Amino acid sequence: MAKGITTKEENYSQWYNDIVRKADLAEISAVRGSMVIKPYGYAIWEKMQSVLDGMFKETGHENAYFPLFIPKSFFSKEASHVEGFAKECAVVTHYRLKNDEKTGEIVVDEDAKLEEELIVRPTSETIIWDSYRNWIQSYRDLPLLINQWANVVRWEMRTRLFLRTAEFLWQEGHTAHETREEAVKEAELILKIYADFAEKWMGMPVLKGVKSPNERFAGAIETYCIESLMQDGKALQAGTSHFLGQNFAKAFEVQFLSRENKLEYVWATSWGVSTRLIGALIMSHSDNNGLVLPPRLAPIQVVIVPIYKNTGQLDAISEKVKGIMQELKAKGISVKYDNRDTRKPGFKFSEWELKGVPVRLAIGPRDLENGTVEVARRDTLEKEILQMADIAEKLVNLLEKIQDNIYQKAFTFRDNNTFYVDNWEAFKERIEQGGFVYAHWDGTAETEQKIKDETKATIRLIPIDGKAEAGKCVYSDEPSTGRVVFARAY
Amino acid sequence: MAKGITTKEENYSQWYNDIVRKADLAEISAVRGSMVIKPYGYAIWEKMQSVLDGMFKETGHENAYFPLFIPKSFFSKEASHVEGFAKECAVVTHYRLKNDEKTGEIVVDEDAKLEEELIVRPTSETIIWDSYRNWIQSYRDLPLLINQWANVVRWEMRTRLFLRTAEFLWQEGHTAHETREEAVKEAELILKIYADFAEKWMGMPVLKGVKSPNERFAGAIETYCIESLMQDGKALQAGTSHFLGQNFAKAFEVQFLSRENKLEYVWATSWGVSTRLIGALIMSHSDNNGLVLPPRLAPIQVVIVPIYKNTGQLDAISEKVKGIMQELKAKGISVKYDNRDTRKPGFKFSEWELKGVPVRLAIGPRDLENGTVEVARRDTLEKEILQMADIAEKLVNLLEKIQDNIYQKAFTFRDNNTFYVDNWEAFKERIEQGGFVYAHWDGTAETEQKIKDETKATIRLIPIDGKAEAGKCVYSDEPSTGRVVFARAY
Repeated sequence: MAKGITTKEENYSQWYNDIVRKADLAEISAVRGSMVIKPYGYAIWEKMQSVLDGMFKETGHENAYFPLFIPKSFFSKEASHVEGFAKECAVVTHYRLKNDEKTGEIVVDEDAKLEEELIVRPTSETIIWDSYRNWIQSYRDLPLLINQWANVVRWEMRTRLFLRTAEFLWQEGHTAHETREEAVKEAELILKIYADFAEKWMGMPVLKGVKSPNERFAGAIETYCIESLMQDGKALQAGTSHFLGQNFAKAFEVQFLSRENKLEYVWATSWGVSTRLIGALIMSHSDNNGLVLPPRLAPIQVVIVPIYKNTGQLDAISEKVKGIMQELKAKGISVKYDNRDTRKPGFKFSEWELKGVPVRLAIGPRDLENGTVEVARRDTLEKEILQMADIAEKLVNLLEKIQDNIYQKAFTFRDNNTFYVDNWEAFKERIEQGGFVYAHWDGTAETEQKIKDETKATIRLIPIDGKAEAGKCVYSDEPSTGRVVFARAY
Repeated sequence: MAKGITTKEENYSQWYNDIVRKADLAEISAVRGSMVIKPYGYAIWEKMQSVLDGMFKETGHENAYFPLFIPKSFFSKEASHVEGFAKECAVVTHYRLKNDEKTGEIVVDEDAKLEEELIVRPTSETIIWDSYRNWIQSYRDLPLLINQWANVVRWEMRTRLFLRTAEFLWQEGHTAHETREEAVKEAELILKIYADFAEKWMGMPVLKGVKSPNERFAGAIETYCIESLMQDGKALQAGTSHFLGQNFAKAFEVQFLSRENKLEYVWATSWGVSTRLIGALIMSHSDNNGLVLPPRLAPIQVVIVPIYKNTGQLDAISEKVKGIMQELKAKGISVKYDNRDTRKPGFKFSEWELKGVPVRLAIGPRDLENGTVEVARRDTLEKEILQMADIAEKLVNLLEKIQDNIYQKAFTFRDNNTFYVDNWEAFKERIEQGGFVYAHWDGTAETEQKIKDETKATIRLIPIDGKAEAGKCVYSDEPSTGRVVFARAY
């Protein structure tokens, strides 16, 4: 257990806050609900961005940038969208400040009131579809596969670092298609990309499915999602991909001349993941000693700590380390040599453990004599002495092993916390204890709401690959054709 | 001269707008003063980001992210800063909309008025230094070398795509140091990075210098800058690096325990370049046929157009092209095969010329027979027939040659439009015709202002490497110790 970190068992929520603060990932800012993402946290986000951006580009998407501000009237154009988004948002009403003549203080200049208020984007469907109207004339202009990396603002009252903040960073894809089928296929392709990224890079197993109508994105016909189980038994929605039908095309009058020479409305998708993923990463793998990072997303994969009593020893170790670092870098491993002379090895060990660096090497004078190095794994906290020969190759393998192990551990945890329940009393009890609960549901919004009111559990998703199974709704006893996944969620 | 592009000679400003629109770089949006950066324009920005980000990281800088919103009171803390920035800005006053009970329209909810207004950042010194107060306690915490990639908003009344927009994208570095000397060195290091980037990547020669007190950044002790000459003889400020002294440390109470165990205020710099660089790039190299891109920043470096009469010929060409593309990609060249069957070669030639792709290959049936390819350079519009053997190697060399030529051409242009003037009548005449004018100045703000009022010329910079030269101010006849650079500017 690391100094200054509350244990998970004691208080999971406090443990989370401690990890974010002590691992130097982010902090609250002077602006209500907004966070400062510190360099180490931002470096993780940059890794995530780089991988996802590559995946989007490989599948034909291009990046672009649309305005931060959206005219208020745009939100009124898509009826369900405005209900979902335009209410809790930052509103720009003026464009100038001035010195108050009496007090000398800076005040809003009432002469500089905007004719129409501007909303700081909570999501960009409206402003983007307003642009697409001019970009799309014919089927030759389709598909249009655009992504944007941007900041967005949703005025959240209860905020938590990374998980729920007023301003957050994300990517939002907005695509336009000739046919319903092609748009649905796109939404599903992105779901697959998100799931692959979560599992192969974040080491975080996810369920894939669609949302119940109640939980759909405001303006969507279908919302695909990936859901992951956090260590405290609560679910976290890690990414969503929406099939929007022709809703936005109709709201913004975006028509194209089809192959049959007819004017038709365009079919749309939108999809996004955000800095929330960093919260999911923390709550999937970390322990009471601090952060645990999957090697593929760790800004520093290997840290080397010299153990020495005098500068002569340090010089000899540093000379050896120079060679090792070259070897590791040649294999694409990011490595840091922590040769600070103001800190003792024990302090350094705790610090890098806290920051989740997957592998720590320690090298002392005896190692130099014996041609060895001490290798410590962050995931299992195991140490072993290895021969220095082929050390880069050995570490490449070890990092892969750690990546696998982290995933397996999370997978086993989810497996152990997945339940099939057919009885209302058992359901309530189960939900109270956490985990994913597969249960029958009668398909009505009323039952969904009642279950939520009584247990705080929501339908996380309707499994994509769920098999048909006749049953009775766990709440209403009405007939059901398959199970859905319930959980309490972040 | 390309279809739909006004010639430079006819109307430079219209030519610029036409290039931006026809090359599909950006467009005005529905939000006053804000632009949409389209995929091709954004791809250039991504290239710029990637190179600059690498340069910053190589010199020890890390990225982080700070809030979009800044509490109004923060601006009042640094007196000159507020005068420069807080006036023309977007002000968030409310955090909720609601349906009007009578009309049903969406209106601002007056019950959701913020206690303190939030300013959408025009630049982030204040919010960042407010954070630094908690990050810096001791000299061990210094230097702090942070950069942020972000959007900022300055409420400009007269906007032009890329050059001056209400919202723009940029990077802003904010560093903290133990000593004045170290901070000055940092500001100068960044100036060098900016100049290297402009010259080696953008192919745009720049002058390096410092601003006159009048033209300094609001809150700076010294503003370093790079200035470039556009094709119409107007100057463009392409990047600035500010030595901020202890102004922000004092405003936000950021002190550190020095090596001598004394509490001292931290020394600061800030620096930035923005999407304005894309405007500079356009106006440095492009011609009446469209955009001309330096190979090092071109999203597509080589485009291949097949010349065919039937699908048999196309298939044979495509087979050959497949091999060429592999070779080019192996050399790190980005290449596109334009095999659209809906467009004729002539159309494609114009389109890629318009979009500034540095090299165009055309391959027809006769080329297949002869083992040749037609190679067209965008910068000179020259064509030649080359043997296919070692084509990748030849193109690597050609791209380098084009990069050099673009720079040399811009350099020669600047050289031909740089003047030394010692007489007020000659000065006025010269300024009217454009170019950089080196002239003596008496060092007073009054004279600077009068020159500006009479000629619209400003002091672009005081050269860093300017040699001492006794002379008389071109306006006032008062003594001067060296020449400064005047020009009309964007």
